Amino acid sequence: MRKIAIIGGVAGGASAAARLRRHSEEDKIIMFEKGPHVSFSNCCLPYHLSGVVDSAEKLVLMSPEKFAAQYNIDARVNNEVIDIDRKNKELTIKNTLNGETYKESYDKLILSMGAKPIVPKFKGIENVNLFTIRNVVDIDKLNKFIKNSEKKNVVVIGGGFIGVETAENLKEAGYNVTLIEAANQILKVFDYDMVQILHKEIYDKGVNLIVEDKVIEFQKDCVVLESGKKIEAQAVVLAIGVAPEVDLARKAGIELGKTGAIKVDQNYLTSDRDIYAVGDAIEVYNALYNDYFKLALAGPAQKQARGVADHINGMRIDNRGYIGSSVIKVFSYNGAATGLTENIIKEKNLSIDYETVEAIPSDGVKLMPTSKSMHFKLIYEVPTGRVLGAQAIGKGNVSKRIDVIATVIKFGGTVDDLKDLELCYAPPFGTAKDVVNFSGYIATNLLSGSYKQLHFSKVRELVENGEYIVDVREKNEYAAGHINGAVNIPLSEIRDRIAELPTDRKIYVQCKSGQRSYNVCLLLQNLGFKEVYNVTAGFMGICYYEYFNDIRLNRKPIMNKYNFN
Amino acid sequence: MRKIAIIGGVAGGASAAARLRRHSEEDKIIMFEKGPHVSFSNCCLPYHLSGVVDSAEKLVLMSPEKFAAQYNIDARVNNEVIDIDRKNKELTIKNTLNGETYKESYDKLILSMGAKPIVPKFKGIENVNLFTIRNVVDIDKLNKFIKNSEKKNVVVIGGGFIGVETAENLKEAGYNVTLIEAANQILKVFDYDMVQILHKEIYDKGVNLIVEDKVIEFQKDCVVLESGKKIEAQAVVLAIGVAPEVDLARKAGIELGKTGAIKVDQNYLTSDRDIYAVGDAIEVYNALYNDYFKLALAGPAQKQARGVADHINGMRIDNRGYIGSSVIKVFSYNGAATGLTENIIKEKNLSIDYETVEAIPSDGVKLMPTSKSMHFKLIYEVPTGRVLGAQAIGKGNVSKRIDVIATVIKFGGTVDDLKDLELCYAPPFGTAKDVVNFSGYIATNLLSGSYKQLHFSKVRELVENGEYIVDVREKNEYAAGHINGAVNIPLSEIRDRIAELPTDRKIYVQCKSGQRSYNVCLLLQNLGFKEVYNVTAGFMGICYYEYFNDIRLNRKPIMNKYNFN
Repeated sequence: MRKIAIIGGVAGGASAAARLRRHSEEDKIIMFEKGPHVSFSNCCLPYHLSGVVDSAEKLVLMSPEKFAAQYNIDARVNNEVIDIDRKNKELTIKNTLNGETYKESYDKLILSMGAKPIVPKFKGIENVNLFTIRNVVDIDKLNKFIKNSEKKNVVVIGGGFIGVETAENLKEAGYNVTLIEAANQILKVFDYDMVQILHKEIYDKGVNLIVEDKVIEFQKDCVVLESGKKIEAQAVVLAIGVAPEVDLARKAGIELGKTGAIKVDQNYLTSDRDIYAVGDAIEVYNALYNDYFKLALAGPAQKQARGVADHINGMRIDNRGYIGSSVIKVFSYNGAATGLTENIIKEKNLSIDYETVEAIPSDGVKLMPTSKSMHFKLIYEVPTGRVLGAQAIGKGNVSKRIDVIATVIKFGGTVDDLKDLELCYAPPFGTAKDVVNFSGYIATNLLSGSYKQLHFSKVRELVENGEYIVDVREKNEYAAGHINGAVNIPLSEIRDRIAELPTDRKIYVQCKSGQRSYNVCLLLQNLGFKEVYNVTAGFMGICYYEYFNDIRLNRKPIMNKYNFN
Repeated sequence: MRKIAIIGGVAGGASAAARLRRHSEEDKIIMFEKGPHVSFSNCCLPYHLSGVVDSAEKLVLMSPEKFAAQYNIDARVNNEVIDIDRKNKELTIKNTLNGETYKESYDKLILSMGAKPIVPKFKGIENVNLFTIRNVVDIDKLNKFIKNSEKKNVVVIGGGFIGVETAENLKEAGYNVTLIEAANQILKVFDYDMVQILHKEIYDKGVNLIVEDKVIEFQKDCVVLESGKKIEAQAVVLAIGVAPEVDLARKAGIELGKTGAIKVDQNYLTSDRDIYAVGDAIEVYNALYNDYFKLALAGPAQKQARGVADHINGMRIDNRGYIGSSVIKVFSYNGAATGLTENIIKEKNLSIDYETVEAIPSDGVKLMPTSKSMHFKLIYEVPTGRVLGAQAIGKGNVSKRIDVIATVIKFGGTVDDLKDLELCYAPPFGTAKDVVNFSGYIATNLLSGSYKQLHFSKVRELVENGEYIVDVREKNEYAAGHINGAVNIPLSEIRDRIAELPTDRKIYVQCKSGQRSYNVCLLLQNLGFKEVYNVTAGFMGICYYEYFNDIRLNRKPIMNKYNFN
């Protein structure tokens, strides 16, 4: 009989415990959780605020009693491990209800303490009702407080996953919500060009979205920003990020990695050969840029926990590193991303030569009422065509496309592979040429040099410089909104009106989403025009990209009218 | 200038024409279509019957005028090519409106004639109003006829994609619908065990579903079956299958393959080096069982068409063979499949050693209101673990999972790869351990020999033979319906009641979906029990599997009550 201790009873800890029990009936398995609940759904916490998850109790998935009865696992809630004596392989545990401490030995130890919300020392922090969100107690407290508050102004600080989901669910509940992000964009898993769609959605749904502005102090029920703005707030939710919970490990002399999280080897063993670590407390290896990073996601935590239970029982673990895949619902939009983003490439200063594809195809057959536009971005290596990452945002099934791309990345696939994929198609579900295939076509066309493109974010510059833009949509589309100064020559007339095009300057071709303009680019090249550029994602892409910043910066739009359809 | 002729103006033909034009402004491109429309959405045809696509005109995506204006393509509708003179590279075309014929030469020719509904010589065929569905004219005719018919009984013969979609849409429109299939199951892309879920759905939604019965003759507004059943029918829709349209090719001496479809090489060239063929009229190579087969799907047709246009313009084509991926909506259910099925393995008598995984996980976090059960089946090679195929049926996002598996198959991936995939997760979209990962876990457990399983379809035999089944669900679950004779020992009590289990015979462990029973199997093995089997997919799987045939065959159920949740 071995004695296996687990510190932390949520995603990683609970998964490891269950798998350990399946391996052996004999092992004594003890799981210490400092909070009052084991195995709760931390990912679902924000959904309690809107009532999607109607009671806080539902967030708790398993009780210590169930763990005992079903798995013979000794799950001890309100039991905080306060010391690890590695030499004697002994833990000191404090019962957080009565303050008593006791000791417990272990043969193997698994650290699964997760990460905790970062709380900087803001000036005047005592002037507001401050909340963070980590567990069921936290969310219950916030929910009850704001429900019972007479005035319902909530400020959420931090535009990461938790911040955005919290802001959304509070807004859905009918509160006045301000979301503040210090950087120039929320949700860094989406690049700046893509995230504008979500900025627009959050703004349109009535959340007071403030980016590129910092909290400098709190006054009485009020958040004061660097810009001088003052936002009333009966409650302030701090969601600027999480830090791996490493105090206990550091104190015990367990090695930390360069990211500050616990360092583990390929088997998730720490620097102590009897101590494993999993989940948000550790750093993992990035399979795309070959360095360590923090990845606070539930799926990887569960996979690691399972691996550790296997390794303790003499099985080999398969650790191929991580690429990171995630998805978020933002009101009526879904956004998903996998692999590298331009944000990561810039932030890490990676020396990767890459190109991007942007497209806004329909995610279904247009004549079906279920079809919706999807904004899609693919990032691939040049000249190899190796797929590096993708992002998709739309009202439909975006996670499907990103899951497929994530799978391609795992296999080291290229844009040629994207073309070749056989994906399911029937009118209620998609199109015969799915955006995944479609992006492969575009990328291989670009790699073969068959045409050139210009990113929609550069169109403002074109307009300011008086460059020649030809809008090849039909006249009625042009009339419903167009780029200032763009010349309208519809695709259906262009062969007869070639003479109107300039031969001595660059031609930027733009349509609604980049598809017709692509045809025109090839047409013009075939007719001898040399400097022809396809504006990616077309007028729709430009409108979504410009809208929120036009409002925020109070700047002159580059189009006479927006058109988002 | 080359002159490129295309016969057939729907999926394959229209795609080839557009791509050809992008390659060259100079080529003369003529597309001959014998029907009145080019580029209509054949996949959407059935959706006009229910009004999801509210007008027949909407089904037509492009007009000859648009092809001319936008692509300078000469699209000739009502123009049937009646002869190919390969020696002189000349076509004879009949104008189907006025009967006049004329000739047109070609440099390159693309055959994209599709497939036509099979119409056997039924006895008394003149006694009913018989319809087939191939184009917009067909669906408009059927729709108008039944709308204007006083009595609204429709019989659909054939349970393939078109038959099922037609039956569904007619039922949604409020008609009395009978669906007749001669085989013992509809939709052969799903195995017999999986398709029972769809049999149940179709039956529950009020379609008179008849399987394993043949039409032997038609009487006045009446379909007579081999069983003696007579079904009233003001309209009969014949959808028993399609045959590649090869008459013209055969007449011209172009080689056909062993499936009866047009034979093409890796570049989709026929036996004539100036004639290509694409789409439903050709046979393609199966990448999983290395033989030719017919694959009547829109996606492959478009890919082939693009490839042909590229090859004509001197580019290399990437032809890696096909695995076949498809999806269908059946009332409130979605069903998707990719790769090999047990049906194919049996039908082709393939010498592949394989095993299957069946599971019914939730497709989302259970406490989210959007989560739904998903029936999932994975087929993988033994002992390699290579993924061969998968099927998923449920009310949620099944095509996502099948698209991911299809991608894994394309890369020759194994069940180990499934475990490692990083798929998007957030509560509104899925679970941290997606069924794709989950099926990989199960399969690797099975491959490692850590436990044994018994397919839910064998439980009837167990009951009949009086085998020992232990139901490890909690008491209230057992009370709500259970297998006749199964002994109830809940997971939460099993460690205390081990003595009740027999030591001298096989033990079959069953729970709701196969998850808890798996834990019990390992528990029992760890305690020394040798012959322990996990019943796959549990009581839910059994109920779905037995239900429709219990009714159809009027046989005694093996459970005291069904429970489908």
